Amino acid sequence: MQYRIGIDLGGTAIKAGIVDETYQVICSHQQPTVEGFELVVADMAETARIAAEKAGLRLDDFPSVGVGSPSCINPYTGLLVFSNNTNWRNMPLKQELEKYIPVPVFIENDANCAVVGEMLAGAAKGYRHVLMLTLGTGVGGGLIINGRLFSGGDGMGAELGHTPLVACGEPCTCGISGCLEAYASVTALIRQTEKAMSDNPESRMHAHAVAHGGVSGRTAFDCAREGDAVAKRVVDQYCTYLAAGIGGFINVFRPEIVLLGGGLSGAGDTLLEPVRKKVEQFVFAHDIIGAPPIERAALGNAAGTIGAAYLGDI
Amino acid sequence: MQYRIGIDLGGTAIKAGIVDETYQVICSHQQPTVEGFELVVADMAETARIAAEKAGLRLDDFPSVGVGSPSCINPYTGLLVFSNNTNWRNMPLKQELEKYIPVPVFIENDANCAVVGEMLAGAAKGYRHVLMLTLGTGVGGGLIINGRLFSGGDGMGAELGHTPLVACGEPCTCGISGCLEAYASVTALIRQTEKAMSDNPESRMHAHAVAHGGVSGRTAFDCAREGDAVAKRVVDQYCTYLAAGIGGFINVFRPEIVLLGGGLSGAGDTLLEPVRKKVEQFVFAHDIIGAPPIERAALGNAAGTIGAAYLGDI
Repeated sequence: MQYRIGIDLGGTAIKAGIVDETYQVICSHQQPTVEGFELVVADMAETARIAAEKAGLRLDDFPSVGVGSPSCINPYTGLLVFSNNTNWRNMPLKQELEKYIPVPVFIENDANCAVVGEMLAGAAKGYRHVLMLTLGTGVGGGLIINGRLFSGGDGMGAELGHTPLVACGEPCTCGISGCLEAYASVTALIRQTEKAMSDNPESRMHAHAVAHGGVSGRTAFDCAREGDAVAKRVVDQYCTYLAAGIGGFINVFRPEIVLLGGGLSGAGDTLLEPVRKKVEQFVFAHDIIGAPPIERAALGNAAGTIGAAYLGDI
Repeated sequence: MQYRIGIDLGGTAIKAGIVDETYQVICSHQQPTVEGFELVVADMAETARIAAEKAGLRLDDFPSVGVGSPSCINPYTGLLVFSNNTNWRNMPLKQELEKYIPVPVFIENDANCAVVGEMLAGAAKGYRHVLMLTLGTGVGGGLIINGRLFSGGDGMGAELGHTPLVACGEPCTCGISGCLEAYASVTALIRQTEKAMSDNPESRMHAHAVAHGGVSGRTAFDCAREGDAVAKRVVDQYCTYLAAGIGGFINVFRPEIVLLGGGLSGAGDTLLEPVRKKVEQFVFAHDIIGAPPIERAALGNAAGTIGAAYLGDI
């Protein structure tokens, strides 16, 4: 059996997972993300080494090591170009990791890793053209074209969350105004929910928020399911934003399948059904050429680990 | 010398051009587009035959015949899926043409042909990742990824004009609301110009329109160049819309070059300079990774003929 290893470098934790040839994560290890690039690199190597040990393996038993991170990554130069969490710029992640790791290191944006994982082992298995959005704190994008990961001409693209949804509209964390992320992320949904609550003191979302320790991405979806009219309007508007974004991507990429991942995809059919319906009005020539299925991603956080682990193979 | 032949099936004329190995259109022929699919197909074959004769050639002297049309085309099935001009749906264009033409026929959307032409012989020569927008009655899109034409997973994508610019905003001819085309086409610019004129009777755009037989895509650009404040605001807003659209595409495709073609690209630096400046605010991590050059397409209408002629080669 040839195993692979993937590392997820996140803002709060470094996780390493060992993946077998059937794409199962057979064991893993994690530790908190500390401050400072040199320390983080050393911790990443140690996390990987410990995860490997748990499987009875050493790092030189693997053909390569893959890393995914919620950052702007240049997979060709191996630089971590930009990270919102840490303010790192052009850090030589691949090069520094290879001082500790005796096999080639591949690095990619985490949403790109996720779509690779879903293609290999999840909801996009068998598809050659896949578009995936991860709906979390931000909106991540992953694209498979002709069975291969597409991350832009210079490797730093596929930033689907940073395309116009309402140009010059809501400010986005990236500094641009009007990005899809500023309308379709969990952060945006919370903002939309809080606005509706403030305008509608009678909504049961107030009681839900008190009972659940605050407003979250679930507040509107939970209360809409329970029949609250204000929550339904929030969900309806959110789904329109998301469907408009997805429709535009369909018109460009015509994927065989669209996957939604990230925390918000946990809303399941409450999210998927209105989005599928609404997307029809945003797809070019929909009455003639139709639209691909829109499904929930299958692997959750494991998608990123599996995708990272196989970066050296694709 | 191996020649190629490209046919441009437009709403008003059918044009055929013979292209030599240096990508020069050495001779051409055209006739008006009549009504009725069977007649149009016969005319296309005749137009091609006459253009070939002018070069001392017969249709079986060519390795293939390429066709570009401002329609939704399925290059894999050879169907003209949808044409706004004619209301044709799923017409077997390739199959019917091959009854008249003794070599394989390839068909593509005209904006896709244009970017192929520009890559082979125009402003994108030598580039492997190219994004092109044609700013005309509509907004056409063409994409080269890794040196190859990308037209979506099923060949019917790359509809860059039909992605959200202001989701649910201005109605677009395609039936979707808020498309880039509804803000950045010549048609949209004329609407924006007329609105500004109506709101500002003092603008010199009124005199310009009278002198030039009506409002056109040039009205605001010409008057802005002459210092008219209202026209400057129209141009400024138009360039912001276009820059927001281009910025989003850069964040997804990270092309090596962005080309602007179509009638409006004739405005030259009056268009290009503000767009280049404004696009910076719409490019993700622009201060670190920058943006590709934005240039005017070089070949004009010949791009479509040359691209169509080489569809069988790419």
